[in-house]
Amino acid sequence: MRLSHSLIPTLKETPAEAQIASHRLMLRAGLVRQTSAGIYAWLPIGYRVLRNIERIVRAEQDAIGAQECLMPTIQPAELWRESGRYEDYGKEMLRIRDRHDRELLYGPTNEEMITDLMRQSVKSYRELPQILYHIQWKFRDEVRPRFGVMRGREFLMKDAYSFDLDYAGAEVSYRQMMLAYMRTFQRLGLRAIPMAAESGPIGGNLSHEFIILAPTGESLVHYDSAFEEIDYLSRGAGGFDHTSATDLERFFTEMTTHYAATDEKHDPAAWEKVAQPRRREGRGIEVGHIFYFGTKYSAAMGLTVAGADGKPVHPEMGSYGIGVSRLVGAVIEASHDAAGIIWPDSIAPFRAAILNLKPGDAACDRICEDLYAKLGATALYDDRPDRAGVKFADADLMGHPWQIVVGPRGAATSQVELKRRATGERIELAADDVPARIA
Amino acid sequence: MRLSHSLIPTLKETPAEAQIASHRLMLRAGLVRQTSAGIYAWLPIGYRVLRNIERIVRAEQDAIGAQECLMPTIQPAELWRESGRYEDYGKEMLRIRDRHDRELLYGPTNEEMITDLMRQSVKSYRELPQILYHIQWKFRDEVRPRFGVMRGREFLMKDAYSFDLDYAGAEVSYRQMMLAYMRTFQRLGLRAIPMAAESGPIGGNLSHEFIILAPTGESLVHYDSAFEEIDYLSRGAGGFDHTSATDLERFFTEMTTHYAATDEKHDPAAWEKVAQPRRREGRGIEVGHIFYFGTKYSAAMGLTVAGADGKPVHPEMGSYGIGVSRLVGAVIEASHDAAGIIWPDSIAPFRAAILNLKPGDAACDRICEDLYAKLGATALYDDRPDRAGVKFADADLMGHPWQIVVGPRGAATSQVELKRRATGERIELAADDVPARIA
Repeated sequence: MRLSHSLIPTLKETPAEAQIASHRLMLRAGLVRQTSAGIYAWLPIGYRVLRNIERIVRAEQDAIGAQECLMPTIQPAELWRESGRYEDYGKEMLRIRDRHDRELLYGPTNEEMITDLMRQSVKSYRELPQILYHIQWKFRDEVRPRFGVMRGREFLMKDAYSFDLDYAGAEVSYRQMMLAYMRTFQRLGLRAIPMAAESGPIGGNLSHEFIILAPTGESLVHYDSAFEEIDYLSRGAGGFDHTSATDLERFFTEMTTHYAATDEKHDPAAWEKVAQPRRREGRGIEVGHIFYFGTKYSAAMGLTVAGADGKPVHPEMGSYGIGVSRLVGAVIEASHDAAGIIWPDSIAPFRAAILNLKPGDAACDRICEDLYAKLGATALYDDRPDRAGVKFADADLMGHPWQIVVGPRGAATSQVELKRRATGERIELAADDVPARIA
Repeated sequence: MRLSHSLIPTLKETPAEAQIASHRLMLRAGLVRQTSAGIYAWLPIGYRVLRNIERIVRAEQDAIGAQECLMPTIQPAELWRESGRYEDYGKEMLRIRDRHDRELLYGPTNEEMITDLMRQSVKSYRELPQILYHIQWKFRDEVRPRFGVMRGREFLMKDAYSFDLDYAGAEVSYRQMMLAYMRTFQRLGLRAIPMAAESGPIGGNLSHEFIILAPTGESLVHYDSAFEEIDYLSRGAGGFDHTSATDLERFFTEMTTHYAATDEKHDPAAWEKVAQPRRREGRGIEVGHIFYFGTKYSAAMGLTVAGADGKPVHPEMGSYGIGVSRLVGAVIEASHDAAGIIWPDSIAPFRAAILNLKPGDAACDRICEDLYAKLGATALYDDRPDRAGVKFADADLMGHPWQIVVGPRGAATSQVELKRRATGERIELAADDVPARIA
C-alpha cells in the first residue's frame, strides 16, 4: 500500500478522550475511528490486524475440530424467552422492533440460537460430540463505553459451543478448548494466565478467565512462574496433543494446580506456599472466558438426542469466548513504548515499511519502487512528500516489525538501513538483500 | 470434516416455504437455516461457500488497489440526516434506539459513513484517488422477505467507494471497478452481463447492473453473444490491464457497445441491428450494481480537499456493490440439476466427498481414513452408519466437485471409484492415485 494514497490518518496529538495507551495509539496510528459512542470503524491498517488475529483464532479452533458457522447479528426475542434470559439481560441488550413490530435484538451472545439450531438437526448420541463456533459482531449496550475497542458496544467475538453426551465428554471438550486458547495467545505473542472464575450471568459452574499480561492492564494478578515456562504449541514429547486423553489431563493439571489470582481473589495463605522465586506479579487484561454449564440450555429449550439405550438425553454444553476486537487493544497494551506500537510479527498489518526519505530523488525512488514491487502486499510504502522526521515518527507509531530506510546518501551505492522496531537495532545492507533478510 | 459429527442437516423432503431452486437446495443441503423472517444462520458448509466467494471478491478488489476496511453495522442517525436520506429511506431502514434514547440504525449501505471518515482524514488533492471497500452485513427491513438468501433482510455485501479529484479520475475508478467485477464473476464460474441501469434511490447518473445468467433467474435478458467470448482474466495481449488507460477504454467500449437489456427495457429496434447469430436470450439475476454520483455526498456533507491551486474541491464519488450472500444463491441457480447443487471448483465447500459405503469393513475404513488424512480440510468424509443410497443422494445434493466412492468390493484390491459431479463421469482407479487426480 502506498501511504500517500491510503486512509491511514496518523495523528501527532494525543486525542483528549483516550485514557489508556491502546486507545491513544489506535487513534494516533490511524487504526480506528469512533463513529458513535463505543462503536468503531476499522480503517485499513486496523482491519489488517483484526483479520490477522481472527486468522490465528480460527486456525486453533479448526485444529481441535471445531466447526465454523456464522449466526446472524439480529436474533428473535422468542428464543431468549425460552431460556428465560430476555428479561434478565436488562439494558445491556439492544432491543429492536422491526416494521411489523416484531421483537428482535442484536445478539450479545449465542447460546440460545446454537441450541435451537442443534435441536432442529441432531437426533442421536452417535452425532456427538460436536463443537460449533463463529466469529461475529456482537452488541452490548454499555452504559458508559470507554477505553476504545477494549470496552466498545459493537465488538467482534469468537464464541464456541460444545455439545457432549455426558460430563466426561464435556470435560474433554472443555480441556481441548482451553488448550486451543493457550495456543492462540502464544501465537499472538501474548503471555496468558488462566484463572478459575465465577460463572456470572451466562450461568454454569466450571469456568476460567484468560488474563493476558500487559504492564498497563486493568487488574493486578499474582501467578506462578510455571505459566511462563510452558510451550503450548509443542505437540511432541512433553507437549500436548489435544487428541490424547493423557496429554489433556496433564495439561489441565498444569493449568489448575499452579497459583493464579487477580487481586480481588488473592489468597495470601495459598500464595505463601508458592516457592519465592516462582512468585510473579503483573497487570493483566481479560481477553477470554470459558464455561461449562451442563444442561442449562439443552434442558430449558428441549434439545435432546436419543441415547445408546434409545432414551432421550439432554446434551451437556459449554461456551467459550475470545474477544477478537478487544485483543487488538490488549496486544497494544502488552507491546508498545513511548514512540508507539510494537506489533508481534504474527499479526503486524505490514511486515515492513519502506521509508523514502527523498521522494523525487531518482536513486531513492528506484530503490523504493523495486523493494515495493518485490515485497508486495506485505509492505507499506511511505512515499509521502513529507520530512524524514515525520516518516520516522509515523513508522515507530504504526509499529511495523521492520523499517527499511532509503536515503539519498546510501541510495547512491544502493545501500539502505534496516531497523528492527522491537529492539531498535539498525544495520546497513544492500537493498537487494532486504527481502531475504526480513523474510 | 467427518459428516457423522457435523452440523450438516441434509433434508430428504423439500421444505414447503421454498419457492425457488436455490432456496430449496440451500435448506436441503444443510447450508443455512432461517432464524427469523429473512434472517439466516450459515451452517458449516454454507459458511465455507460464503467465505470462498468473499475471498474471490476481496482478491479482485485488492488487485485494483482498493483498500479494505470495516465499518460497523450500527450507524448514528445524525449522519443520515446530513445527507437527507434518513427520512427518504422509509421503512426498509431498521431504526433503533439505544438505552440513552439515541437514534441509531442498522446500516443498509455506507455512503454517509465513508464520506464522514474521509472528511476527517484527507486534506489534499495529492491523497486522491482512493477506493475504500468493506465486506459487512447489512440490513434492509423488506416488507416480505423471500427466496432465501436471495432476498433476505440481513445480508452480506461488499460495498466500495471511490474518491477522485475530477470526472476524468472518477471515470477511471468506475472502469477499473467494472473490470474487477467482471473478473470476480468469471472466477466464480458465472457468466455476467453488465447493463446500463437507472440510478434508483441511491442517486447518481452513470450506473450499471450486473446480471448473471441462470436458467431459473428472475428476469429475462437479451444480450449480444460478445459478452460470452471475452476472457476478463487475461491481462496479456488482447486482455485488460487495469493500470492501462488504453485497456480500460477498450474494455469499457466492449461493455457498453454490445446490446444488453432486461425484458422491461428491451428495445426491439436496437435488437434488430444485432446480427442474428449473436442474439442471445436467457434468464438472469442481479448480483451487483455500480454508480457514479459525482459530488452528491461530498457536497452535502462538506468533504473537501485542497486542490492543486489551494482552493477546496469536493471529490467525485462512486459506489460499487456486490451481494456476497446473494451470490451463494445465484451460483446455485446457475449451477444445479435435479439431484442437487453443482459447485464450481473455485467456491466448493469441499473439493471432494469420501463416501465410505461400508463403515466397519476393515478395508473400506482403512482406505477412507488414509484418503481423509491425505486430503485434510479439503475433504468431507461421509462416515455415517447409513445406506449407500443415502450417501450417493447426499453427495449429489451437496454438490462436491468430486466424489470418492469406497465400497467393499473395490477396497479388497485398493480400488475406488471417482465421480465428477458436473459431468457424471466415473472412473475406477487405485486409491493411492486419487489425491493427484483431483488436485
